[in-house]
Amino acid sequence: MIERIAILGTGLLGTSVGLALRAAGFRGNLVGWNRSAEGAATALSMGAIDSIGTDPLQAARESQLVLLAVPIYATLDYMEQLSGVLGSEHLVTDVGSTKAQITAAADRLFNSPERAAFLPGHPMAGKERGGATLGDANLFRGAVWLFTDDPAWQRSPHGAALVKGWREWVAAMGSKALDLDPARHDELVGWVSHLPQFVATALSALLEDEVGDAPELKDVGGRALREMTRLGASPFSMWRDIAYTNTETVKAALLGLEQRLAHLRENLRTPELRDEFEKANRFRSQ
Amino acid sequence: MIERIAILGTGLLGTSVGLALRAAGFRGNLVGWNRSAEGAATALSMGAIDSIGTDPLQAARESQLVLLAVPIYATLDYMEQLSGVLGSEHLVTDVGSTKAQITAAADRLFNSPERAAFLPGHPMAGKERGGATLGDANLFRGAVWLFTDDPAWQRSPHGAALVKGWREWVAAMGSKALDLDPARHDELVGWVSHLPQFVATALSALLEDEVGDAPELKDVGGRALREMTRLGASPFSMWRDIAYTNTETVKAALLGLEQRLAHLRENLRTPELRDEFEKANRFRSQ
Repeated sequence: MIERIAILGTGLLGTSVGLALRAAGFRGNLVGWNRSAEGAATALSMGAIDSIGTDPLQAARESQLVLLAVPIYATLDYMEQLSGVLGSEHLVTDVGSTKAQITAAADRLFNSPERAAFLPGHPMAGKERGGATLGDANLFRGAVWLFTDDPAWQRSPHGAALVKGWREWVAAMGSKALDLDPARHDELVGWVSHLPQFVATALSALLEDEVGDAPELKDVGGRALREMTRLGASPFSMWRDIAYTNTETVKAALLGLEQRLAHLRENLRTPELRDEFEKANRFRSQ
Repeated sequence: MIERIAILGTGLLGTSVGLALRAAGFRGNLVGWNRSAEGAATALSMGAIDSIGTDPLQAARESQLVLLAVPIYATLDYMEQLSGVLGSEHLVTDVGSTKAQITAAADRLFNSPERAAFLPGHPMAGKERGGATLGDANLFRGAVWLFTDDPAWQRSPHGAALVKGWREWVAAMGSKALDLDPARHDELVGWVSHLPQFVATALSALLEDEVGDAPELKDVGGRALREMTRLGASPFSMWRDIAYTNTETVKAALLGLEQRLAHLRENLRTPELRDEFEKANRFRSQ
């Protein structure tokens, strides 16, 4: 039974998890910590946490489950710090968007019978803007929550029970769990999540150069333009870590799209254009 | 006072105009015609038209306003046919996505005091799938309706009054009119409308090749992937004409995006990435 949770990082995801847990019936204690005091105060005022910890390591030690809801390199930093102060009575989990480095660190720093357990997680949910104020109890409803847990890890009975308990809360928040190998995870999300983000960023930056001086013309694009550039609002602070930790897959995906666009460009008046539209139609019809 | 309207082409747009006119209080007669009898019957059953014409030219002749709601080359074909059978008591307007060729044809075939008037129009509204069954009375609410009317055209007093009347119905359907030079129109929509479509097509076709054999993995992409590929469902039949009639602008826009993606790809680990994210953020913040 998980009764004490520490949420380290009360941005959009951390705050949303707190709200979603409450909405799903979690009655235990939620303590939060955030680098900026304002973000923590907002999460507290929204009811996503019950209290603000004075220190993240202390808050972690006093909880059973520690949720790391910070960018990837900050997650890796916390993992280093927490492995020394937590024990087999603790479970740490995270929400990082790439999993190879985090899963390797979990293998090195956690998941032996004497140490804290670590469950690498990645909910496929978010918004184009961050921050506690956008926290949403329904953010994870209908989303896939990816895990890259290594079946070889030998955990304490307590750690194994906490992993089972957290997976139940993930289901209670409305998400569907999917287990993947960490390398496969990073490759897959590189194509279906990171590529769409970088495309939206490139398209938005290009259009800022082309029509940015006439903002009234953006209205002309309507819903299609709004959707295709919505992710252009995404913060660099989060995506820098993703670009650094999934560089090769993102490179390959971007190059693939460049080639595909060139193919379209060279075939605007040939029957090849029909083939591309029909292939795109198939992607959307499944 | 416009009291008799012929809608030639009762697909998504034609049917939606009929429904939107009714919702806005149009009490006159709406006659429809469609190449496939099924599409016309659907529009009739939905109340978008009052009757189905036996022949499109006859239906046009018996109306005051003719709305051409068919792809671009079909619009140009209708313009050739209609110019000979209509007179100064008629107004023809259209919904075509490129306007240079249509506006030039209007100058050649219409808009002298003895002939029918022609008002080149382009509502920035649509869906990724076509057909009368998706017709929607609210499709044009909040949308921009572009016009590329040439101020040099000398119309009959009747034609001028019909143009004014149609612009009032466009406003009543909830759209905001914006007048543009036809060349500027095609350039602008090439960037803010056609480019997003071709990007969605390329991204969808690429992902069909990459993950199409594992459709369950599409769930992983979540809302971002759904949005970025929604337009992948768009029909080739409509976009072929756009690719043919706006080729140079679409080529330039695609090349611009290819270069932008390559720039991102080469800078995934440099400070340039921040600049691109910040520029994209600016596009979305206005």
